[in-house]
Amino acid sequence: MKTHLASVRTTVKRRPKRGAYDRETINAILDDAFLCHVGFVIDSQPFVIPTSYGRDGETLFIHGSAASRMLKNLANSIDVCVTVTILDGLVLARSAFHHSMNYRSVVILGRASLVTDPKEKEKALLTISEQIVPGRWAEVRPPTTKELKATSVLRIPINEASAKVRTGPPVDDDEDYSLDVWAGVIPIRLMCSPPVADERLPPTVELPDHVIEYQLDQKA
Amino acid sequence: MKTHLASVRTTVKRRPKRGAYDRETINAILDDAFLCHVGFVIDSQPFVIPTSYGRDGETLFIHGSAASRMLKNLANSIDVCVTVTILDGLVLARSAFHHSMNYRSVVILGRASLVTDPKEKEKALLTISEQIVPGRWAEVRPPTTKELKATSVLRIPINEASAKVRTGPPVDDDEDYSLDVWAGVIPIRLMCSPPVADERLPPTVELPDHVIEYQLDQKA
Repeated sequence: MKTHLASVRTTVKRRPKRGAYDRETINAILDDAFLCHVGFVIDSQPFVIPTSYGRDGETLFIHGSAASRMLKNLANSIDVCVTVTILDGLVLARSAFHHSMNYRSVVILGRASLVTDPKEKEKALLTISEQIVPGRWAEVRPPTTKELKATSVLRIPINEASAKVRTGPPVDDDEDYSLDVWAGVIPIRLMCSPPVADERLPPTVELPDHVIEYQLDQKA
Repeated sequence: MKTHLASVRTTVKRRPKRGAYDRETINAILDDAFLCHVGFVIDSQPFVIPTSYGRDGETLFIHGSAASRMLKNLANSIDVCVTVTILDGLVLARSAFHHSMNYRSVVILGRASLVTDPKEKEKALLTISEQIVPGRWAEVRPPTTKELKATSVLRIPINEASAKVRTGPPVDDDEDYSLDVWAGVIPIRLMCSPPVADERLPPTVELPDHVIEYQLDQKA
């Protein structure tokens, strides 16, 4: 197993101390989110599209309609960049110049390939579902053969990647610490509000544990 | 002023009803966030990098270190794609297949150019700062000439763009509405926790209004 995922292309040039290339750091960030931005090129024009993902070992899975332009293009084994960003806070410094953000991000370079085996496809869809709402898959109607055919799943190997992380307080110029300016961090995270039941839901259907417990989850 | 920002390249093909191309819808989404993902191509490899932005009229500004590889590349008037995504909720359907997300996203295609005029540059930095923490700029030490030189600002015209929006409850197959499966939406939003003062902050410096008021802001 490759454990160091750096390459010339993924090495963090600006603020190299914020860069990390070990699989453990990269996986921990990937597992704290489920939304990524996928970059790809068509006729020399870059496109960046948000989509959900799931990680299984050293593979990232994304899915979408088989009719999707993005998925059709990606299935042609073109170069992609998958970026995951978690915003953790606003870093308010004493000077405008030293303002920053606390964040954890991962950039993966690679080529996507179509998952064609039906068993692997269903497992990949389960992986994505579990990444977003753990426990949900087991309680809903599973996909029919027709629905599986209408869904494309792509795998992207996590082999060339980097993480970039900033944490902690602002770092100001020495002479600015005496300024009468409030400085610190505003922590930020994705939060859930109480679930809103579908209006067509019979009153006999109770809120399941996997939805109740989701309130405390800080994923995204 | 161009008010309809569609092009062949930005027209939403999948679920065209979710697409919008009017400046008002696009601006409203851009103004509810401050983090974007910028896509660009180097040696046919796409890269997607998260960064903050500010909108002023029909222009989006991004900034970074003048030493940044991304900003140096973008300043060469290459094609870029700027994507802004706001996640509003998880849509839990009765079938695995009909699960979805509520979101608002904008995709802008264009070419970035370097802001060289010092006055325009400082105004653009103010625009970005106000987009992230309104009221902050006026209370901090402004940038020095040296700091301004160390900062690159790029402008991206908002002229070819699309928005994509999903709202509302799950849409299930007719026969699935009778299933004993909870369905609905888990609303999601970025939230702030109470600000954490820098340890080196003198106790005499009080929390300013623009930080106190930020607690209620739902931006991101």
